[in-house]
Amino acid sequence: MSEIAVILPDGTELTVPEGSTVADVAFEIGPGLGRDTVAGVIDGDLVDKATVVPDGARLEIVTEDSDEYLDTLRHSAAHVFAQALLRLYPDAELTIGPWTDEGFYYDIYGVDLDSDDLEEIEAEAHDIIDEDYDIERFTRSREEAFEVYEDNRFKREILDTEAADDEEVSFYRQAEFEDLCKGPHVESTGEIGGFTLLNISSAYWRGDEDNEMLTRVYGTAFPSEDELAEFMEMREEAKERDHRKIGREMDLFSIPEVTGPGLPLYHPNGKKILDELADYARSLNVDAGYEPVETPHLFRTELWKQSGHYENYADDMFLMDVNDEEYGLKPMNCPGHATIFDQHSWSYRDLPVRYFEDGKVYRREQRGELSGLSRVWSFTIDDGHLFCKPEQIEQEVNQVMDAIYEVLDTFGLEAHVALATRPEKSVGGDEIWEQAESQLRSVLENQGIDYDLEPGDGAFYGPKIDFAFEDALGREWDGPTVQLDFNMPERFDLSYTGEDNEDHQPVMIHRALYGSYERFFMVLVEHFNGKFPLWLAPEQVRILPVSDDNLGYSHRVKNELQDAGFRVEVEDRSWTVGRKIQDAHADRVPYMLILGGNEEDAGTISVRDRKEREDDGIQLQEFKEHLISEREEKRTEPDFLDD
Amino acid sequence: MSEIAVILPDGTELTVPEGSTVADVAFEIGPGLGRDTVAGVIDGDLVDKATVVPDGARLEIVTEDSDEYLDTLRHSAAHVFAQALLRLYPDAELTIGPWTDEGFYYDIYGVDLDSDDLEEIEAEAHDIIDEDYDIERFTRSREEAFEVYEDNRFKREILDTEAADDEEVSFYRQAEFEDLCKGPHVESTGEIGGFTLLNISSAYWRGDEDNEMLTRVYGTAFPSEDELAEFMEMREEAKERDHRKIGREMDLFSIPEVTGPGLPLYHPNGKKILDELADYARSLNVDAGYEPVETPHLFRTELWKQSGHYENYADDMFLMDVNDEEYGLKPMNCPGHATIFDQHSWSYRDLPVRYFEDGKVYRREQRGELSGLSRVWSFTIDDGHLFCKPEQIEQEVNQVMDAIYEVLDTFGLEAHVALATRPEKSVGGDEIWEQAESQLRSVLENQGIDYDLEPGDGAFYGPKIDFAFEDALGREWDGPTVQLDFNMPERFDLSYTGEDNEDHQPVMIHRALYGSYERFFMVLVEHFNGKFPLWLAPEQVRILPVSDDNLGYSHRVKNELQDAGFRVEVEDRSWTVGRKIQDAHADRVPYMLILGGNEEDAGTISVRDRKEREDDGIQLQEFKEHLISEREEKRTEPDFLDD
Repeated sequence: MSEIAVILPDGTELTVPEGSTVADVAFEIGPGLGRDTVAGVIDGDLVDKATVVPDGARLEIVTEDSDEYLDTLRHSAAHVFAQALLRLYPDAELTIGPWTDEGFYYDIYGVDLDSDDLEEIEAEAHDIIDEDYDIERFTRSREEAFEVYEDNRFKREILDTEAADDEEVSFYRQAEFEDLCKGPHVESTGEIGGFTLLNISSAYWRGDEDNEMLTRVYGTAFPSEDELAEFMEMREEAKERDHRKIGREMDLFSIPEVTGPGLPLYHPNGKKILDELADYARSLNVDAGYEPVETPHLFRTELWKQSGHYENYADDMFLMDVNDEEYGLKPMNCPGHATIFDQHSWSYRDLPVRYFEDGKVYRREQRGELSGLSRVWSFTIDDGHLFCKPEQIEQEVNQVMDAIYEVLDTFGLEAHVALATRPEKSVGGDEIWEQAESQLRSVLENQGIDYDLEPGDGAFYGPKIDFAFEDALGREWDGPTVQLDFNMPERFDLSYTGEDNEDHQPVMIHRALYGSYERFFMVLVEHFNGKFPLWLAPEQVRILPVSDDNLGYSHRVKNELQDAGFRVEVEDRSWTVGRKIQDAHADRVPYMLILGGNEEDAGTISVRDRKEREDDGIQLQEFKEHLISEREEKRTEPDFLDD
Repeated sequence: MSEIAVILPDGTELTVPEGSTVADVAFEIGPGLGRDTVAGVIDGDLVDKATVVPDGARLEIVTEDSDEYLDTLRHSAAHVFAQALLRLYPDAELTIGPWTDEGFYYDIYGVDLDSDDLEEIEAEAHDIIDEDYDIERFTRSREEAFEVYEDNRFKREILDTEAADDEEVSFYRQAEFEDLCKGPHVESTGEIGGFTLLNISSAYWRGDEDNEMLTRVYGTAFPSEDELAEFMEMREEAKERDHRKIGREMDLFSIPEVTGPGLPLYHPNGKKILDELADYARSLNVDAGYEPVETPHLFRTELWKQSGHYENYADDMFLMDVNDEEYGLKPMNCPGHATIFDQHSWSYRDLPVRYFEDGKVYRREQRGELSGLSRVWSFTIDDGHLFCKPEQIEQEVNQVMDAIYEVLDTFGLEAHVALATRPEKSVGGDEIWEQAESQLRSVLENQGIDYDLEPGDGAFYGPKIDFAFEDALGREWDGPTVQLDFNMPERFDLSYTGEDNEDHQPVMIHRALYGSYERFFMVLVEHFNGKFPLWLAPEQVRILPVSDDNLGYSHRVKNELQDAGFRVEVEDRSWTVGRKIQDAHADRVPYMLILGGNEEDAGTISVRDRKEREDDGIQLQEFKEHLISEREEKRTEPDFLDD
């Protein structure tokens, strides 16, 4: 019997007999691991432990302690749902039921469910979990499987498209229920500690609107009740913080149907925040030696052909004919910046050349994928591109990382960092890749940054460092990127004259501090729950006159703060002070000044903050000086009333 | 014989016999005027004095004192050119030879000319002028005219398309030369005091590239040699100041062929100027109570149908299909702003609501019409829209006018102002038009602004005040506009709740302080001849170390100025100080600091300015404080070295 090689996560190579399954390899490593094995990850795909490992595969063993265990558990929870459903609705036709980041869903045909029905199904599912049925894998021939699914066209279509003619296909069984399924699954239904159904929506079979409309039921599951309870609390909190909800409450933005999907309108309150963000990025960029540029939004497709976007990206571009020539809205800002670089001749003494632009880009996502500000058609990137000598990569990336960490620090955001290295298919020679990757590693290590190595996950044109923001609820969002690029300089034939008087090709680095303004804006809204730091708050101070008699004094105070550049309003509606306070809290205004006869007589102010603290007899000058420093230092919470 | 009515410029109506010519009417007004009459303007068109005046026409008599006299003189100069040409090239075929704003041109076929030839033709033309031939009008029947032009297909085509079958067509004759021509012309060739040919280019017959290629000769003419000399000097100066030339010299922007026509790329130097302009407009707008908003560049055509742009403007729009729906790049920002207004319910207490946006718009000009930054495909407007009660128009327009005059004052620009009132076809009732126009007049009169009244020239949706910038060379450029709009609020069904608790329609006012950033940028480049005021200069101070020994000191000085927010560079190439100075002058840098051993030892600086003044032994602190105030006050010339 011949042998094959398996690569383990630590990079060691193990030799096992050909035909070994994931479980076999685990037992080979150690009997304890063998017994604990739930599933495996082969070349990035989560698979059943009975899966045969191919030669040269990268294999990770999944146990109850692995991150992937939750996916496996939720996959079984989807089966528990399906079993409960069929007990109550025997005519329902099952289609697919995968796990997701948040739980699982199952798409079904031939039933019409409402939320009361879900309760009943959930109760049945809890019974199934309590019964603790064994979950068993078995196989059938493709022909037998077709017979089993005589009445289910969806499963037959899956067999048609996913199984080869002479293949054995795998099923999973728990008590009376069985399902065509590649796995993996946990050992028994009792492993599911917490189970709940979340909601119902609809979906088209295969996501194609020409196909049958299916009912999609979402649910989630955890190893324990406690974990489920924590998730449900977080989910409630996330709903409260949803940027679309807060966006309406604070009048930040809208995406009305008449103007188009994925094309947000920023209202004054939202635009004030955007402008502050843009000014901050501009100051960081100027300090780091970046120079502002501005490029059109529309270019001849000649340019997109030169950059390679047309070949690889045309389906996602907005293209149009103008006077019999094709033009495209820019999906990226880099070709424009490369063109500006290309208008000059450069010497090695001039490098690095650094450009930045708050550049709006256009990407044609499917309408169904659009969601609030997180997925839109047009978004603005705080986009920087720099052109440097290969040996300058480390110094430049160091500087970019400093700026990114300053941003994270300013907003109190954490980030996960990943280094993605050379993929199998790539442009550029060995030397430049090694030089580049070693400089990136060196930056991460010298700065003491924890990062995940993602071997082979770099772009074909260069390695990159990716950031994922972690917000106040622990959720992760795509953040800034530092992407090296050996391809664009080649395609645009960019060059500089070296010390040797010869032409050389610069390295291009793409980088952003925020990434997309739209997504960053969304992250900030949800991270701060709309309670923006003073410097970002659309309205920074609201003055609440106790009665109309105090309007004059209120406006004098307003003017003084406004002259210092603050965004201040006077609440001049004839409401009670209580209602005025309530309204200011609803609008999340950091500071309220309550001005009545006492204050006016004494020439002082009463200060209340968003955290419901209050103090009186304060000198306006003292408060103003505090405000100036709170704004200047971009502190995240109103802290004038701190003890 | 029946009579007709003629309306004179002062609005009086004169009754004259039917069939009266322009000259007849002039004699009717007075024999002196009759004798001085050169031509007439009927309903805006310059015509020969022999033209019969139709009933109800608005007529202006043209004498040597009229503005239109120059057009008439140049029209005759075109004939003088053609006469000279035919004397030297008898086989040349004449086509058309109109006057223009700058002189005249004549398109001819069958000759191949170079600039040496032009000299010879010009000499011949001067002879013709010296001969002082009478210029006489006469007519032929259309048939006779066809015979005259047996060998000239172009003139025959003119006869075919422009003259009716049984029409008598007019010719003008001077000595042996005659030309099919509607006139008007001066009395004799000797009236032309200054005459010159300017250059040769080519043109297609009728502007259609499928037709014959013609030779176009440009020239100009004036009543006197002095006026010609003044024009030629100005023309030379304008060439020197051409923003495309200065744009290259100062590396401000480019419009490369690969990216597309009319789609400018702003390089770092240009973008720094744009950013300063944008910051200035933003501060003026915020001070005036405008709130920033941001709208997409792309909208569903539903919106353009609602706004009326689709109906009236589609040919100039960039339209495209996205998922079987039509979308259009915005040609204007107003519908987006109206949509934001429409997301709220408003009370009369909330008005005026004022939005502004540096909004990029897209208008598909013909490629041949594109020119540098003055005519482009995509340009940014410092666009403000406000929504107010009809009785607030005066107060709001007053405020806008104040801001526009602050801008004019800041840049040292003059402006011509025109008030354009209700046209024949219009929306909105008599009351609102009268109220609006009287408020606009009242603003202009109370502010003591000289303005031209342009009756009937308003947009169909409201009256407007137009500004034309006059630059340092006395040239005029389209500038800001204050446009009232009764139509958009109607189309978007905008409303507010009045004191009477009923719904009312607000008036919308469109206004810009600069107009298009692109055109304003161009005006500023040419107005200042690239010598921007300190606050706008891309590089404000350049430090010229006398030798490499002074580099350290130079960088310390640079850092101190940079910390105060100035854009400062150190010239560190190993050039002589003389060459460094020359280069800084070429780059139009306002201030140069020359730092050698003496300065370093004494801890002082030598200052040189763009006006070639120099002084030494200056304290850096003193210079820096001056710079801060020069920037702050936006003074237009470097004045540290003023006596």
